[in-house]
Amino acid sequence: MTTTPLSTPPAPTGNALIVLGCPEVPVQQALALHCSHQLRSHGFAVHAAGNPAVLNLLKVSDPEKRYLPETSILEKCIEEIVEKKRDCDLCIVFAHSDAGISYAATMRHLLPASRLVVIIFGKDPETLAALADFPSEKIIEKAVHNPMQLRKKINGVFGWAA
Amino acid sequence: MTTTPLSTPPAPTGNALIVLGCPEVPVQQALALHCSHQLRSHGFAVHAAGNPAVLNLLKVSDPEKRYLPETSILEKCIEEIVEKKRDCDLCIVFAHSDAGISYAATMRHLLPASRLVVIIFGKDPETLAALADFPSEKIIEKAVHNPMQLRKKINGVFGWAA
Repeated sequence: MTTTPLSTPPAPTGNALIVLGCPEVPVQQALALHCSHQLRSHGFAVHAAGNPAVLNLLKVSDPEKRYLPETSILEKCIEEIVEKKRDCDLCIVFAHSDAGISYAATMRHLLPASRLVVIIFGKDPETLAALADFPSEKIIEKAVHNPMQLRKKINGVFGWAA
Repeated sequence: MTTTPLSTPPAPTGNALIVLGCPEVPVQQALALHCSHQLRSHGFAVHAAGNPAVLNLLKVSDPEKRYLPETSILEKCIEEIVEKKRDCDLCIVFAHSDAGISYAATMRHLLPASRLVVIIFGKDPETLAALADFPSEKIIEKAVHNPMQLRKKINGVFGWAA
């Protein structure tokens, strides 16, 4: 069996984990639903983790759970990973603050074998990106209210059609 | 499969228009999708109008257009109403700023016979509500990142099950 390098698209069927930051930046919830929908369309089982407010925004946005059916509180998700009850092939972390970068660093530490993609956005993503000094793929784009450019970059990295 | 029991008899079939403010407040896009989904489940045809950024957030959040398939730029929508090409039985305006209240006043003027419900939210909704001195139903709740209390009030006004 040959081993496919982790960064090569298209991604194999597997488990994906989406980690969300605090809900201040409106593009985050929209792009989380977009990523989950695309990943599920490409054969991934998707789980999302975040604080209660961001999970509530996702639930209210997706009343029939068509795009993102499975979520948990971040602390519980981290606990499950530590206890080896949860694993993933791909971990996507949305980071628009220092806390988001810390979550990504935590995921890098806890999931050394997973593909880790950090989506760094908000008002000043370059400054934030400089803090992410651990091995990961980074998607960096200034985005607060308009998700279109960042969506384009995300689609490009994962090889999803526009 | 989950079936949502209706707590009240279904609303009559008709046209609903959802008018959105600028996209700064994260609960707005989630609750717009929620309202559209509920209205459609209760027999309404739903159209939403807003600025390009907020419409993009809705499109990215609902990639298969299952909850809110029909949108237009607010200026174009107003033009169509003025020209009697568009009408509605129910108009819901989301207002978290002076501009939102102005949109609601405009709708009151242009659609004198429609039921007008103004959802006033954000950090200081009471101050904003005092500006809405035209005949309308008002739903007022402090809500920026957490949509749950406001969703509960909206569900109560329209008789939707939680």
